[in-house]
Amino acid sequence: MMHLVWVLIGLIKMDMKMKSTAIAVTNGFLGSDYGKTTHGLIRGSERFKLVAVIDDDYAGRDAGEVLDGNYRGIPVYGMLDQLMDSLDIIPDYAVIGIATEGGKLPESWLPLLIEIVSRGISLVAGTHFLLTSYPELVEAAQKSGAELIDIRKPKPVQDLHFFSGKIYEIDTPRIAVLGTDCAVGKRTTCRMIMDECRSRGITAEMIYTGQTGWMQGYPHGFILDATPNDFVSGELERAIVECAQECDPDLILVEGQSALRNPTGPCGSELMLSGNIKHVVLQYPVFREYIENVERPEFQMPLIQDEIKLIEMYGAAAIGVCLNGAGGSREALIIQQEKIQKELDIPVIRPLEEGVEALIPEIRNVLP
Amino acid sequence: MMHLVWVLIGLIKMDMKMKSTAIAVTNGFLGSDYGKTTHGLIRGSERFKLVAVIDDDYAGRDAGEVLDGNYRGIPVYGMLDQLMDSLDIIPDYAVIGIATEGGKLPESWLPLLIEIVSRGISLVAGTHFLLTSYPELVEAAQKSGAELIDIRKPKPVQDLHFFSGKIYEIDTPRIAVLGTDCAVGKRTTCRMIMDECRSRGITAEMIYTGQTGWMQGYPHGFILDATPNDFVSGELERAIVECAQECDPDLILVEGQSALRNPTGPCGSELMLSGNIKHVVLQYPVFREYIENVERPEFQMPLIQDEIKLIEMYGAAAIGVCLNGAGGSREALIIQQEKIQKELDIPVIRPLEEGVEALIPEIRNVLP
Repeated sequence: MMHLVWVLIGLIKMDMKMKSTAIAVTNGFLGSDYGKTTHGLIRGSERFKLVAVIDDDYAGRDAGEVLDGNYRGIPVYGMLDQLMDSLDIIPDYAVIGIATEGGKLPESWLPLLIEIVSRGISLVAGTHFLLTSYPELVEAAQKSGAELIDIRKPKPVQDLHFFSGKIYEIDTPRIAVLGTDCAVGKRTTCRMIMDECRSRGITAEMIYTGQTGWMQGYPHGFILDATPNDFVSGELERAIVECAQECDPDLILVEGQSALRNPTGPCGSELMLSGNIKHVVLQYPVFREYIENVERPEFQMPLIQDEIKLIEMYGAAAIGVCLNGAGGSREALIIQQEKIQKELDIPVIRPLEEGVEALIPEIRNVLP
Repeated sequence: MMHLVWVLIGLIKMDMKMKSTAIAVTNGFLGSDYGKTTHGLIRGSERFKLVAVIDDDYAGRDAGEVLDGNYRGIPVYGMLDQLMDSLDIIPDYAVIGIATEGGKLPESWLPLLIEIVSRGISLVAGTHFLLTSYPELVEAAQKSGAELIDIRKPKPVQDLHFFSGKIYEIDTPRIAVLGTDCAVGKRTTCRMIMDECRSRGITAEMIYTGQTGWMQGYPHGFILDATPNDFVSGELERAIVECAQECDPDLILVEGQSALRNPTGPCGSELMLSGNIKHVVLQYPVFREYIENVERPEFQMPLIQDEIKLIEMYGAAAIGVCLNGAGGSREALIIQQEKIQKELDIPVIRPLEEGVEALIPEIRNVLP
């Protein structure tokens, strides 16, 4: 009965285009790359309205300000009690707001999560380790009527798709946003391009490929890293085909995952090949010396020219480079930008500072 | 109780290094590429002794003769009754001996499979669709005491491994056998290289990465296409590290899957990067014009030189090319071999006709 009520509320909210309210739990990781799920929600989501964050290390600050210096009216609290006392609503959802290496749920978080669920707040996790595998959480959820939502739970095989070749019948132009490494801002750039296109009357849709993209509420996509390898090509194809058929946009953007040459989870060739994608925007962390988590001489950050060549070997072309300036000053980033721009004949931009307007002429070239 | 007896028999057989007996069910596919699981069992398995095949289209022939003209004393029967009447044993297992596109179990096979299970013969499948998802099979198995073994059933997350970087501590030389396409003989070449090395006193082990490899009984490996994408790098690393630590061989060979540029399931970069593999033997179907199952102008079979360049972009080098001559005459294959050999400074061989001896000097160069 309680479940039915929640479903009805959900349907009403959807009908009124109201978003569900959510808090994010980051417990010390709000300011780090591991907090990127929360960063995505701060930047914007069609699915959730982020109303607060729980993170003792950043208590008293604004989550937007922690992220990029821009206040967004999303307060950070150290404790759940403080948060609940300060909010004038009970949030619909609490999102595990970090992407841990290995996708494990930190065990030390359990007491807080049980407390959240006990208050009737449904829990959303993108970890590989499922919320429903913790008996304490299941028990608390049964008592309070809250839901436990595991978005990385693998789909049953009968719901997965194999590659069919339908992708070759889809004429909608497609651009993938790839990176020379993981955690460099691919999803954020992808969203910025979508917004910039839409503001200019180019109808653009974005295919999500990660858990944060799901949380941001894009209607088409799949969670690549939780998909059995044999179905990755078919699920990507299905997402693109459905998007083209249901929305008929001018442009489809595909969020990249990991990086072509990161040994912890190489990814990208399947996006170009199975998505039949011929154009790529490449995200490049200009001050990062080594591939993320692999600090070894043989895994220095690829040269941008070399990465563009690799992309060309898969039948695609880079149409723009977006610099991630983490680890360097604004001045140093501009110097690097000028240097790289001299070597390439495609736009080299700083998206977080300049926006992505400079990519529009290249994007218009891709449109029919 | 019955289960315990079977486990005991299994242990005794293992201890005596006796293989379990098996029949393979191919139902019309014995002579096609789809029958490659059975082809692997015909060529040899440490796990199963193949005693017969069920395939109405090839009834009365010898399975080895159907495969490559060499009789191996493995009769093919059209019906289960005939097979059971002719064998003087009840086989331990029946293996679904085909690798279907999409990994689906052909529904028309169900009556035969139920009959097999009803006779107490355990069923082994490498399909994505699980035997245990068919209530009729489960019921028959419960009645007869036979087992239903789904080798592609995804492992629970807690049994899967993430990439840890341990691979960089392993000095054992490694060679991957990749292909410019799928279904070109990667596994067979890999096994031939292992056997050739062993016959020369080079202790070699092979990491299996597919269902047929599992059926052939190699002790180390994983089933790549059934592994959630995020765990592929870690499972490969674990298999190699365990093999090096437990067997301490002179050489580890890694079976490739699919192909670097096949859109139905691109694969190979993760083997080189996550397995930290620096040497590759490349299998090349010289008479195949298009990538398997993608007959489109943009998916012509890659030029061998181009594929070698792509491999080099991942930090590895090709040390030999093995030609698959399907679709052409012996003479035409030799002409192609001579032509390609002139263009490359690594051995170009016809493994099925010549063996892989010519690769040994290159392999010795890889050893310390």
